[in-house]
Amino acid sequence: MTVTQHYQVNPIGMVHCLMQSRAETPKNYTESRETGRLEISPQYRDGLKGIQAGQTILVLFWLHEAQRDLLQVYPRGDRSRGLQGVFSTRSPMRPNPIAVSELKVLAVHDLTLEVSGLDMIDGTPILDIKKSLAGEKPR
Amino acid sequence: MTVTQHYQVNPIGMVHCLMQSRAETPKNYTESRETGRLEISPQYRDGLKGIQAGQTILVLFWLHEAQRDLLQVYPRGDRSRGLQGVFSTRSPMRPNPIAVSELKVLAVHDLTLEVSGLDMIDGTPILDIKKSLAGEKPR
Repeated sequence: MTVTQHYQVNPIGMVHCLMQSRAETPKNYTESRETGRLEISPQYRDGLKGIQAGQTILVLFWLHEAQRDLLQVYPRGDRSRGLQGVFSTRSPMRPNPIAVSELKVLAVHDLTLEVSGLDMIDGTPILDIKKSLAGEKPR
Repeated sequence: MTVTQHYQVNPIGMVHCLMQSRAETPKNYTESRETGRLEISPQYRDGLKGIQAGQTILVLFWLHEAQRDLLQVYPRGDRSRGLQGVFSTRSPMRPNPIAVSELKVLAVHDLTLEVSGLDMIDGTPILDIKKSLAGEKPR
């Protein structure tokens, strides 16, 4: 089987935070207390209805600085564990560099969501925001 | 702020399962016991190293049948709750129709992962597979 079709994603907004390089970012959202802002583009305003302070949201980001042609990595740079397939890791390097983070909404101001838990650098494009299912146990 | 850049995603594989229409699929993975196969394209084989039966994986899908121009929906078709912004729901309709599901790996056979928890129709493109962080509590 070979899948030949491809699709286009259009960012709905951008992260603003103090982290300017990957060296400064926590390895993932479960290890982050970093706060910042998700700024959503005006044409997507209607999609935000229902998001409130105190909620946990699932946010998809496009890792615009990530390498897309690597299929194996040393997880967290630890060579003792050997090369692992990127699909068994959370490495930012992967064919479609989309990150998924659970963030806490601290406040909502029109097109801006103040959040905590960021593990992205300033300027990272946002692709999507979803209701978190973290509290709902799989069967 | 307006984000003008866009990006291209290339599916890494495809779902094979018995569900042929959205009416047949569970509303989300937390409500699903459906099993099926994730078939990964040969060029991504090296990325699978480390994925094993018994693991929970996070899988990103491209919802190729979803409408992309809707920003508000009645969640689960329930009109009593009023229209909600798509970003506060798990509706498949959203500007970038990427779904995120946690699936249990039942078996791994070369390029095919047998999984349970599917909430996608047969033929849905797969964009990414990641290690699940479900067991790791956010701070």
